Amino acid sequence: MENILQSSERIDDLLTHNLKIIQSRQVFSFSIDAVLLAHFASIPKQGQIIDLCTGNGVIPLLISVKTKAKIYGIDIQERLIDMANRSVELNQLTDQIKLVHNDLKESTTIFGKGLFDLVTVNPPYLPIGGQDQNSNEHLAIARHEISTNLEEVLKTSHQLLKVGGRLAMVHRPFRLVEIIALFREYKIEPKRLRFVHPNSDKEANMILIEGTKGGGKELRVLPPVIVYDRQGEYSKELYQIYYGDKDE
Amino acid sequence: MENILQSSERIDDLLTHNLKIIQSRQVFSFSIDAVLLAHFASIPKQGQIIDLCTGNGVIPLLISVKTKAKIYGIDIQERLIDMANRSVELNQLTDQIKLVHNDLKESTTIFGKGLFDLVTVNPPYLPIGGQDQNSNEHLAIARHEISTNLEEVLKTSHQLLKVGGRLAMVHRPFRLVEIIALFREYKIEPKRLRFVHPNSDKEANMILIEGTKGGGKELRVLPPVIVYDRQGEYSKELYQIYYGDKDE
Repeated sequence: MENILQSSERIDDLLTHNLKIIQSRQVFSFSIDAVLLAHFASIPKQGQIIDLCTGNGVIPLLISVKTKAKIYGIDIQERLIDMANRSVELNQLTDQIKLVHNDLKESTTIFGKGLFDLVTVNPPYLPIGGQDQNSNEHLAIARHEISTNLEEVLKTSHQLLKVGGRLAMVHRPFRLVEIIALFREYKIEPKRLRFVHPNSDKEANMILIEGTKGGGKELRVLPPVIVYDRQGEYSKELYQIYYGDKDE
Repeated sequence: MENILQSSERIDDLLTHNLKIIQSRQVFSFSIDAVLLAHFASIPKQGQIIDLCTGNGVIPLLISVKTKAKIYGIDIQERLIDMANRSVELNQLTDQIKLVHNDLKESTTIFGKGLFDLVTVNPPYLPIGGQDQNSNEHLAIARHEISTNLEEVLKTSHQLLKVGGRLAMVHRPFRLVEIIALFREYKIEPKRLRFVHPNSDKEANMILIEGTKGGGKELRVLPPVIVYDRQGEYSKELYQIYYGDKDE
């Protein structure tokens, strides 16, 4: 096992289907956001899926157990794609998952236009700058709109998707208005919306949104995801999301 | 009491501060939507408030206990404004509440431009036509966009509000994308959003949204309103909304 890991890296359990993932606190570790997005997205049984801003490949790995579709991923950080590809090997998923290091802007040159059934994306949430910008370059690029931004994500998704294909995104509530406006601008009609609340008395701190390219106007707001119950334990649904997929 | 009521009307208890309201199942009865909106809106302590599509005046009545502001209301249905004004008299609130029968389009001619701190509105939810359009004219006008529509409501609200004034609306989730787009188009930035779910496992069937004329971009998604608990009884919060304001 030793030679698959670089300095500061460790192998974590993805808790479902015996999947493993290589992580590093100094470079990138996946968060609950990615897990919720993988659970929320409408996964096609076959066809082609692409994960933008894929990081260490957590979303392609989680999705792989639910579909026979080919799954692609792209990230601007070479270090992360290298980790991600070693995780794909570790899980013997090299036939299904292909991850490439490149700028999002090059996606259609690499993957073609109008060929995808689903785009997933856990993009950087925060605008550039601000006091909270991380001094660690890897973490800063994952969290701030340094190398891409919301409009570029929407534009690229529109280009990659088939008509009728879907875009599933996780983001922060404070940008919901802008997100909805950009979905509309790039002809991806929001169809499913879900809010994630730390507990039932708290404001939402995450949104899950899915739209259909060229879809009709008919939004559904799904039941809220409540992360912790009144005892401060993970809620029943969260347990199911983390552990329950084994039975699917 | 007899001469204050017309045929089919009855006097109901508003459950807070001993308020009474005249209702008629054949013409108009308020619903939980109005109660939730009155509870949700950020009520200024003084100044001027206007309730569009006021119906039998339930929102001005409910709001009156929380503010010294003058409260106006407008509705296109003469029959409802007549009921509403008799309720205002019954509650001895004629100094604070003034309700007029007219078309929404005439609002600025009557009330002037840029003078209001808060606009509340529980507009007709449904587009014109469709199988479900009520054959009762009074109910059809209250539920369908026969005499006004979402864009007219936003345009009128923009004209009535001061810069920094707020618009609070209750509506249905399936039109959220359109609502957010129109708020933005008419320079009323959405700031607070709350979803109402019949219970914690069901999709939202109502939205509460508040925006600020000329406000900055900073949306908050408040905790969900869950109407019924797992036993099928009103949830604690609903009880508090219906009965709890007595202690305020």
